[in-house]
Amino acid sequence: MGTTDISTLREAFRRAPFVAEMGLELESLGSGECVTFLDIEPRHLQQNGFVHAGVQATMADHSAGAAAFTLVREGCYVVTAELKLSLLRAAQGERLICRSSVLKPGKQISFVESEVYCVSSGEERLVAKASATMVVVGQERR
Amino acid sequence: MGTTDISTLREAFRRAPFVAEMGLELESLGSGECVTFLDIEPRHLQQNGFVHAGVQATMADHSAGAAAFTLVREGCYVVTAELKLSLLRAAQGERLICRSSVLKPGKQISFVESEVYCVSSGEERLVAKASATMVVVGQERR
Amino acid sequence: MGTTDISTLREAFRRAPFVAEMGLELESLGSGECVTFLDIEPRHLQQNGFVHAGVQATMADHSAGAAAFTLVREGCYVVTAELKLSLLRAAQGERLICRSSVLKPGKQISFVESEVYCVSSGEERLVAKASATMVVVGQERR
Amino acid sequence: MGTTDISTLREAFRRAPFVAEMGLELESLGSGECVTFLDIEPRHLQQNGFVHAGVQATMADHSAGAAAFTLVREGCYVVTAELKLSLLRAAQGERLICRSSVLKPGKQISFVESEVYCVSSGEERLVAKASATMVVVGQERR
Repeated sequence: MGTTDISTLREAFRRAPFVAEMGLELESLGSGECVTFLDIEPRHLQQNGFVHAGVQATMADHSAGAAAFTLVREGCYVVTAELKLSLLRAAQGERLICRSSVLKPGKQISFVESEVYCVSSGEERLVAKASATMVVVGQERR
Repeated sequence: MGTTDISTLREAFRRAPFVAEMGLELESLGSGECVTFLDIEPRHLQQNGFVHAGVQATMADHSAGAAAFTLVREGCYVVTAELKLSLLRAAQGERLICRSSVLKPGKQISFVESEVYCVSSGEERLVAKASATMVVVGQERR
Repeated sequence: MGTTDISTLREAFRRAPFVAEMGLELESLGSGECVTFLDIEPRHLQQNGFVHAGVQATMADHSAGAAAFTLVREGCYVVTAELKLSLLRAAQGERLICRSSVLKPGKQISFVESEVYCVSSGEERLVAKASATMVVVGQERR
Repeated sequence: MGTTDISTLREAFRRAPFVAEMGLELESLGSGECVTFLDIEPRHLQQNGFVHAGVQATMADHSAGAAAFTLVREGCYVVTAELKLSLLRAAQGERLICRSSVLKPGKQISFVESEVYCVSSGEERLVAKASATMVVVGQERR
């Protein structure tokens, strides 16, 4: 967790209007790890009835950022440089769970992966996987 | 435009609850081309005041899918296999415009690019660029 | 392993001039899995003394293709639609080992991941990670 | 070109054993731009007779790095954080030409795109497109 305070992180997480409105919830945070979830509602869907790729991309990105943030020095934060999302299966069910973990932390950039699972009839299936490059930004640097 | 009817496409575009709620609007459609826009509201933002990467990913993905869809045979549609989004600059302003164009159409897969511009004080700047692989799916194939 | 013969696959693997010249060797093949290795020589390096990203990309791609190929129907083969490679650490040492596994096989496309490890003084470290989208191509389709 | 000397860059380009052995040649360099080419030989091929994706990835990466390098401050250099390559068409012909240009330069990271063209019977066709994230590294930073 480095020098970052968890409660600060939780607050930051909830202060992002787009994910707050979407209904993204923080489940847990650890050193280089973040788990989030989202209860699927009709408003999250694509015209075909499956969860929109944009919902999954948002979860994958936001959770990855939080995971990376747990490992940066105090006063620094992270911004996404790029995110790649592979959509493995159509997502249909009750809930999405996103598990993000830092593959390689760094002073300048961190590499993070996010796995998005869809819970349907109580069963979890991997529906998407993302890899992201996060830039570590500090007060003194910009 | 192939055999696909534009009005059908416009309707399909608006029937996707997630993008409809987000406020994504279709500006124009052509052969292998799609332009969409979004008027930026506080609910689209990240905690730092910039447009959330998830909003840009959603636009880039949805517009890319529409662009690819204009070139598939009748009765077929497209689903996103993967999307990579590079976030070049912080997006802050009044409106996002997304221009998607098919780089290479195909019977099985199509490659599409999306450029996301942010309009601030009337000036357009490229803020994100995406490349996507779309799978062409037909009734008879699945 | 599906209906694909391993010896056929080994031969195909060695008949690719670029990887044969590079010195890429097949270690093992399983259902949706492939392990390859390369003994690092001066000719594989970048001007800074580290293994060139192109060498790692080649391994990651070729091994991923072999892993995907083990799961396709007889008479079909795979071609890479896209590959993303994240370079986590500088690669310096005696040997590269690439472990590829299919994340999600499919009739039209397969998603594969490759992890590239560098062995230095007998110790293995993850130096690169790739995710690829492979298109399944059949005689009858093209 | 910033403060970087072109001849220094040309030399650095040729001192990379892997690309020198592959036969990659520097055609031109400009501010945020790099063009390279490769005369296709049997040793560059895949078992199916097409140029191996690894050759295209190497060109795309190396040329992108050179393009980014033209825009960094003196004493700094660039390393690839990640590269995504989309393979649009099978590459078969006499020569590959790679045109790389910086999409967005930065103090910490630069975004670059590379387009790989294949010349066949005198005609050029786009066969692959890459987007890369380059990290700017300075003597004082590591």
